[in-house]
Amino acid sequence: MERFKQKHLLGIEELSRDEIDSILDTAIIMKSVLERRIKKVPTLRGITVANLFFEPSTRTLNSFLIAERRLSADTINVSMSFSSVLKGETLLDTARNLEAMRVDMVVIRHSVPCSPHYLAERISASVINAGDGAHEHPTQALLDMLTLREKFGNIEGLKVSIIGDILHSRVARSLTMGLLKEGADVILCGPPTFLPEWFEDYGVKITYDLKEAIVGRDVIYVLRIQMERQDTAFLPSLREYIRYYSVNRDVLNRYARKDVIIMHPGPVNRGVELAPDVADGPWSLILHQVTNGIAVRMAILYLLSGIGSSGGVE
Amino acid sequence: MERFKQKHLLGIEELSRDEIDSILDTAIIMKSVLERRIKKVPTLRGITVANLFFEPSTRTLNSFLIAERRLSADTINVSMSFSSVLKGETLLDTARNLEAMRVDMVVIRHSVPCSPHYLAERISASVINAGDGAHEHPTQALLDMLTLREKFGNIEGLKVSIIGDILHSRVARSLTMGLLKEGADVILCGPPTFLPEWFEDYGVKITYDLKEAIVGRDVIYVLRIQMERQDTAFLPSLREYIRYYSVNRDVLNRYARKDVIIMHPGPVNRGVELAPDVADGPWSLILHQVTNGIAVRMAILYLLSGIGSSGGVE
Amino acid sequence: MERFKQKHLLGIEELSRDEIDSILDTAIIMKSVLERRIKKVPTLRGITVANLFFEPSTRTLNSFLIAERRLSADTINVSMSFSSVLKGETLLDTARNLEAMRVDMVVIRHSVPCSPHYLAERISASVINAGDGAHEHPTQALLDMLTLREKFGNIEGLKVSIIGDILHSRVARSLTMGLLKEGADVILCGPPTFLPEWFEDYGVKITYDLKEAIVGRDVIYVLRIQMERQDTAFLPSLREYIRYYSVNRDVLNRYARKDVIIMHPGPVNRGVELAPDVADGPWSLILHQVTNGIAVRMAILYLLSGIGSSGGVE
Repeated sequence: MERFKQKHLLGIEELSRDEIDSILDTAIIMKSVLERRIKKVPTLRGITVANLFFEPSTRTLNSFLIAERRLSADTINVSMSFSSVLKGETLLDTARNLEAMRVDMVVIRHSVPCSPHYLAERISASVINAGDGAHEHPTQALLDMLTLREKFGNIEGLKVSIIGDILHSRVARSLTMGLLKEGADVILCGPPTFLPEWFEDYGVKITYDLKEAIVGRDVIYVLRIQMERQDTAFLPSLREYIRYYSVNRDVLNRYARKDVIIMHPGPVNRGVELAPDVADGPWSLILHQVTNGIAVRMAILYLLSGIGSSGGVE
Repeated sequence: MERFKQKHLLGIEELSRDEIDSILDTAIIMKSVLERRIKKVPTLRGITVANLFFEPSTRTLNSFLIAERRLSADTINVSMSFSSVLKGETLLDTARNLEAMRVDMVVIRHSVPCSPHYLAERISASVINAGDGAHEHPTQALLDMLTLREKFGNIEGLKVSIIGDILHSRVARSLTMGLLKEGADVILCGPPTFLPEWFEDYGVKITYDLKEAIVGRDVIYVLRIQMERQDTAFLPSLREYIRYYSVNRDVLNRYARKDVIIMHPGPVNRGVELAPDVADGPWSLILHQVTNGIAVRMAILYLLSGIGSSGGVE
Repeated sequence: MERFKQKHLLGIEELSRDEIDSILDTAIIMKSVLERRIKKVPTLRGITVANLFFEPSTRTLNSFLIAERRLSADTINVSMSFSSVLKGETLLDTARNLEAMRVDMVVIRHSVPCSPHYLAERISASVINAGDGAHEHPTQALLDMLTLREKFGNIEGLKVSIIGDILHSRVARSLTMGLLKEGADVILCGPPTFLPEWFEDYGVKITYDLKEAIVGRDVIYVLRIQMERQDTAFLPSLREYIRYYSVNRDVLNRYARKDVIIMHPGPVNRGVELAPDVADGPWSLILHQVTNGIAVRMAILYLLSGIGSSGGVE
């Protein structure tokens, strides 16, 4: 496999198509570890990874944690509720201290866009972006692309629609960039208040009409409505959103290809952006996405550690 | 040792006497690991256990954690304060996601009775009930039975009294069922408001009189008064409870056998249901119960993992 | 190396100069482990360390955690927010229970002075004081002394000034005792309300004048102003404190030796007790202190474990 030369994983924006492919190739090898009885390799033994989560997230944190343990890394968790924020310590101070403690890699989730980039310029440890505000969520986009590649063999030419609150979604942003780099055809769909104009610069089509985003598409990627942090001024009434944009069996039966694929970054608001029977039905690859999250994160940890140049996955 | 065929540990109700004995036999082997200098075996290496604790509990969680680490399992903790409850994720979603992350076993504590059973029917990982509402707490009952077997050699015919708030106690319920399956003689004792009539169906004697629950008994099992969650309407005044039901040195000297054994699931409200000098005195097996908690949980994790059929404890 | 015979690390007060030197010698060996690619040794495999932190502290806790993992110990964390305090359990109960779970060592941070001493008399596990009220913080003092020994070769005769809120600082107290035992010359400096008279018994000089604490000194050790827990009656107005006691470039240029060393226990209130360009400048050994925190804690865990008598660091 071609050597991966990036030191950090800051965003999909910073990755070439070759680098994305290199991560996905490695993730497929990592996934085979997950199917063994003893789901663990000593690859990152003696390497310490700090997980700095300044936004609550059980799923992404757990996914990273499991990936780290599968590779035998040591982990340190600094969560919002138990951090030195109490003592007024800055993010940079925290990171510099972890580095002085000889932490090798930092996984960071933070509400401030580009905080991973800020850290990466100032510390020598590798930085992995686990979500920075509404900016990027590259590991999510990579696990989604792994899921598509497993399903379709190739992402090039795939017709993908992303539906929901595009404006505030780091998932939509990272995934759109990744899909475009791989040559997919992307439509973004949502109410006007959720669709920023600048996305047209990316060469993607925008529509307010759910039907248009479903007819003839290979993949419907439904975003989570962030009900807990939505600015109420932006949100059309929830009832209206559900009426016009909720993806349910009825809509799929009427407009979608028979073999359409449904994806969602989770956790699903069942009955809001996605109907329960669609989320759990034969269309859905949602749980495959979760499994692939471990594999992709293992691949990234492995590639950034630089271990790949001297050793391999046992 | 006879093969253990259960996939989950949901409650004492689901276990046969043979299965209980099989767990206790295995626990005795596990306990020998705890007495070594290097208190660790590689038995569950590469196995991931998720601890889902939706009620606060330092003790039971730590006991499971230590048991998991003694067996070299990897652990993921999802606690109430740091869970996706914030994002409105359901218990089933959480469990399905953990499963998609290739978690092998789920330890769950939840205030809703039968939530472990609900999960067990819907996911393929093994489920261990660490307390479900006022329903069951099977690992507590098993560690109590291990403690009795160590002390008396045999549980059959033992005269055990359980004293306190029987009505709201999952410990009382699981332990009573376990003791009855093993052939012990059980008396339940407490104020009328704490004694449900349906317990008579189990063939146990009920009394409101502490003296009657003490005279001639081998074991006095004192329950914790759940002062923090007690419905005040049920609770007689605390002073009255202490006057009539607190187990203290005076009561024991007057009514108990000289070699009576005192047990308590912890943590003790010293001076409420149990006097400090009794909790810490020669009668007390409380700290043995704690030690046996690790051994029993190791045994359960080992038996449910299915590793027993192909390998053993090194 | 001479055998270390202490069972606990309760305070600098309990250590002889030989014992301090023995810890620092061991820490230097441990530090070499931190510079390896695989920063991990199996020394404490199968040993369980419980970290009981009843005051919030990301740094000290993470430092202990990393030290424990570098030595391959198993860890159990009981933090304030997730403890049985909810259930009214006492500190002694918690410790006795951990001991019954066969925990080998207990690291404790608690706001009550001498709570580690209280535990050490009542449980058989080794107890390490990670900060007890305003009393002692011995691992901080030891990492500071390691930093001085690395920099100067020897602590004897060094001229050290400690500046800030001496009265409420466990760091100042432990460090002063340690420096005096090693034969350093110590000046304590701060506003009168921060300087207890009894420190004169220790044979240290006290001054209210920052200039006097800087001229001709080898080391300026700046304490953190505990803004979040300071009794407002003691604190002169913050603006006044900064005017008279803040250590900044201007003050250093005017009064300090050119090769003066700046230390701080962290986290720094930048612009309060220490100017940002001084904290991050060439004078500063602050990040060296952080690295040495891991090495010193590894040394203490190793020495107290008693493993040293039969085996060594691989």
